[in-house]
Amino acid sequence: MSADVIPLRPRESEPSLGPIMALTANGMNAVNQVILERMQSEIPLIPALAGHLIAGGGKRMRPMLTLAGAALCDYHGTRHHKLAAAVEFIHTATLLHDDVVDGSEIRRGKAAANLIFGNPATVLVGDFLFTRSFELMVEDGSLKVLKILSNASSVISEGEVDQLTAARQIETSEDRYLGIIGAKTAALFAAATRIAAVVAEKGEAEERALDDYGRNLGIAFQLVDDAMDYDSSTFEMGKGKGDDFREGKMTLPVILAYARGTEEERKFWKDAIAGHRTSDEDLAHAVELIGRHDAVNATRERARHFAQRAINAIAMFPASPARAAMAEAAEFAVARRS
Amino acid sequence: MSADVIPLRPRESEPSLGPIMALTANGMNAVNQVILERMQSEIPLIPALAGHLIAGGGKRMRPMLTLAGAALCDYHGTRHHKLAAAVEFIHTATLLHDDVVDGSEIRRGKAAANLIFGNPATVLVGDFLFTRSFELMVEDGSLKVLKILSNASSVISEGEVDQLTAARQIETSEDRYLGIIGAKTAALFAAATRIAAVVAEKGEAEERALDDYGRNLGIAFQLVDDAMDYDSSTFEMGKGKGDDFREGKMTLPVILAYARGTEEERKFWKDAIAGHRTSDEDLAHAVELIGRHDAVNATRERARHFAQRAINAIAMFPASPARAAMAEAAEFAVARRS
Repeated sequence: MSADVIPLRPRESEPSLGPIMALTANGMNAVNQVILERMQSEIPLIPALAGHLIAGGGKRMRPMLTLAGAALCDYHGTRHHKLAAAVEFIHTATLLHDDVVDGSEIRRGKAAANLIFGNPATVLVGDFLFTRSFELMVEDGSLKVLKILSNASSVISEGEVDQLTAARQIETSEDRYLGIIGAKTAALFAAATRIAAVVAEKGEAEERALDDYGRNLGIAFQLVDDAMDYDSSTFEMGKGKGDDFREGKMTLPVILAYARGTEEERKFWKDAIAGHRTSDEDLAHAVELIGRHDAVNATRERARHFAQRAINAIAMFPASPARAAMAEAAEFAVARRS
Repeated sequence: MSADVIPLRPRESEPSLGPIMALTANGMNAVNQVILERMQSEIPLIPALAGHLIAGGGKRMRPMLTLAGAALCDYHGTRHHKLAAAVEFIHTATLLHDDVVDGSEIRRGKAAANLIFGNPATVLVGDFLFTRSFELMVEDGSLKVLKILSNASSVISEGEVDQLTAARQIETSEDRYLGIIGAKTAALFAAATRIAAVVAEKGEAEERALDDYGRNLGIAFQLVDDAMDYDSSTFEMGKGKGDDFREGKMTLPVILAYARGTEEERKFWKDAIAGHRTSDEDLAHAVELIGRHDAVNATRERARHFAQRAINAIAMFPASPARAAMAEAAEFAVARRS
């Protein structure tokens, strides 16, 4: 086992998802085919609603990570295609339910499914995709994979409830926030990469390494998502902007700005998170306060720390295009601006 | 293999769930303990919300049927306790989501969870129970059981979407209605009883027999539930009454009354199912029309037919207290008045 440390080094160009996308392009075609086939049903509303979200794109990060993990483990079979689709179905189901829970209006640049199809259908089709994901795992037949993904699903739903409970609670701590994103986001990243080691029949050490990679990367991703919601350098008012703010979600930029704020600023945050300040002016003021206390940069700094841990976790694998692509994906997670 | 036909015969007393409850009493204590243990979470809202519904009682028909099926197969282990709890969790998850979908106000004689805890928490705790059910199945470790229950879950959610699509559609046929209740209700009854044969390591014939028993019993149960929503002999106005009517659900009593109605009556049904007649007077008129065309009795007649099929399905098993109790449960399903 080599134990190189791969530093985040200055690059000629910005880090991108290009290498990981190239690495997994063929496999992702197979995964997309499974996704399209298995979202079908004789009940026309199911493929219509599921297709609205799935055709809406998204980066398909999670299944791509399963495939990249399999490449890292030098796996040459096809079992991971179904499992990667199962991972994406779990993710899609949680997005649909999130949109109902949050009353979202925009998802992936399009009207959210709940706005077009209504909450009832969105809840039920989410359920359907979730059951389909389990059917795919059962077809694969690995109890170990089933255990990893059923456990991750359970942790995700606990994290979602925890996030709901923390909403509008200004006193939410950084630790609790990290616990929530660890559950609602990072658990599925960790499971997505871990199952690659299982399918490749690697040992416990490789499983744990890929789990660590996915978990830290997931946290980095979520931190940057949460930072971008308040980033003054890229901020434009518009639909879907300021959702976290209006829903009173306690994300790290808010936690830091609140902790660093004056009495007057803290009063503003209390009112805003309680739901009494939801205008565009209030949102602009929130962005200004977060900028004043450098809370976006501090959040991105935290993200860099987790991305570095993700990169270190896979240092045990021999150098390969897969390892380089996965390291660059982690760098991308923190560098991206949209 | 004996092939007795056990006729629905006149009884001294009304059929009851007494014998099946006595048969499964010890096992149900163990199942209830699993249910209480496994609905726990460090997020307090989860046991609070889940417990509200679960402590609300209900007959626990589905886990009881798993236990009765195991007794019928002369199984003496304990694996079925976890699996019966998994079945109840699936059922509980669908009830929570149903209440959100229907905007229910009453469930099991108490305020529905969505009214007390809100739709977001109800959706997410439903998801949590669903993931917990899969964790329980994975712990058991039978891929055959996992396949049966993941498939049933998928069929249930398709049935729920189909029911949503059929709502407010006056031209829904009896066949489509039977398809919907076969999916949304009977699939879980069938899976609950089938897995008993799997755990007991019986053959395909016994599996199929128990599947047939559960499926037909589930249809009978749902038919009688739907009949009771319009039964003038037991009808009392009150909260929770007439929900099917106000939601424009196409159940068999309505399908039959519409088919047998005069032009004027059909006009009433069209308006009512479309959602334009939702007053107490409209509901009373609906009950009167359904009585006039004997649609409640006709629905109960259909239920008797399915209950008889359920009883016939288990005739292949040797006579035993379990078989007698399961037969009486099927008779109870059609005879009950509440």
